[in-house]
Amino acid sequence: MLKDYLPFWNQLTQEERTLLESAAQLHSFKKGTIMHRGADDCTGLFLVTSGQLRAFTVSDEGRELTLYRMLDHDLCLFSAPCIMSSIQFDMFVEAEIDTTAYVIPPLVYKNLMDSSFAVAHYTNELMASRFSDVMWLIDQVMNRRLDSRLAALLIEEEQLVGSNTLDITHEQLAKHLGSAREVVTRMLKYLHSEGLVELKRGRVNILDEQRLRKLAGTSLR
Amino acid sequence: MLKDYLPFWNQLTQEERTLLESAAQLHSFKKGTIMHRGADDCTGLFLVTSGQLRAFTVSDEGRELTLYRMLDHDLCLFSAPCIMSSIQFDMFVEAEIDTTAYVIPPLVYKNLMDSSFAVAHYTNELMASRFSDVMWLIDQVMNRRLDSRLAALLIEEEQLVGSNTLDITHEQLAKHLGSAREVVTRMLKYLHSEGLVELKRGRVNILDEQRLRKLAGTSLR
Repeated sequence: MLKDYLPFWNQLTQEERTLLESAAQLHSFKKGTIMHRGADDCTGLFLVTSGQLRAFTVSDEGRELTLYRMLDHDLCLFSAPCIMSSIQFDMFVEAEIDTTAYVIPPLVYKNLMDSSFAVAHYTNELMASRFSDVMWLIDQVMNRRLDSRLAALLIEEEQLVGSNTLDITHEQLAKHLGSAREVVTRMLKYLHSEGLVELKRGRVNILDEQRLRKLAGTSLR
Repeated sequence: MLKDYLPFWNQLTQEERTLLESAAQLHSFKKGTIMHRGADDCTGLFLVTSGQLRAFTVSDEGRELTLYRMLDHDLCLFSAPCIMSSIQFDMFVEAEIDTTAYVIPPLVYKNLMDSSFAVAHYTNELMASRFSDVMWLIDQVMNRRLDSRLAALLIEEEQLVGSNTLDITHEQLAKHLGSAREVVTRMLKYLHSEGLVELKRGRVNILDEQRLRKLAGTSLR
């Protein structure tokens, strides 16, 4: 039920609830679906009920960089850039695994922001939270070596799938990090030679999480 | 007057206006003053009436990176991180030149956000705007060569001061770019040898803006 996923539900009027319930549609998205493509695409807000979304950017040259992940109960605001004129950037959203999500029409949400302080407040907090994610990413990109970022990513993936066996390609890891596949392959081989991971086709096994965590905490200098 | 600087002024009630006018104090800040230091510092919101502020981050190792600038009529939200629990990052604010700004107490602004849709809406737009700035920066950092970013910075500085003579040190340029002074010095010498700039102590003269602009538009690959 929609109400289980929206923290501001109890503060809505009956009229607002009815409107939201009739407007929001539950959809399924197959793994790999690109659900949102940049600032000109105003599909709606995705409210994840199960699955996993990845928000990412794509450079002029086609290089991807993962900004953050969204899991169940997370609301994706930037897939509805038309709700605010100041959202002036291109972000993409992909279903990383099979995902179900409510799609909330942009205008319905925009009207709620203008009629409910709870929604306006929630939206401000949500944006501040994403801002914090992106500020963390800037620090990583500017101040961490790529091997340290790769180690942190492998640990994050391990936590997301709940297993030390990661079904992920070097290409996918490179896309998360905004790097080239060749660079990631070289680093993985180094981690392998140090006994931290085991490499198989399309798979990375984490062998020594403790040393991987130590590497993830290493600064640039 | 405060009302000339706040786009939502006309939508406030008389009571809200009176409260804001009695709470907001106009202060002067000398060039070089650090006006805000990280997430634990909740001084208040700065509303610039004249001058120039720089928002920046500092890495664990003390390396700075400029996020964006604020000029007159700009409101600095993140100098009051206690107004939203989701602001979980350390940002610093410096007066780059002598600056005057109203300081709005955090609680006064927070209450306005909860009582005025105009303020809540303005805050959402402002945050989306800063988010867009930071997304632009991520693209620059990930996908532009440092010489291209330096060229873009020199052009930005030229526009800010309204002159092709920039009184700025290599150290200051490095802090904007999140790089080391030695690296910037090497690049400036290269730009000098190519006839794009002239270098003097604490000063950079832009000689060929057109070629500098061309360099600023160059991609990483």
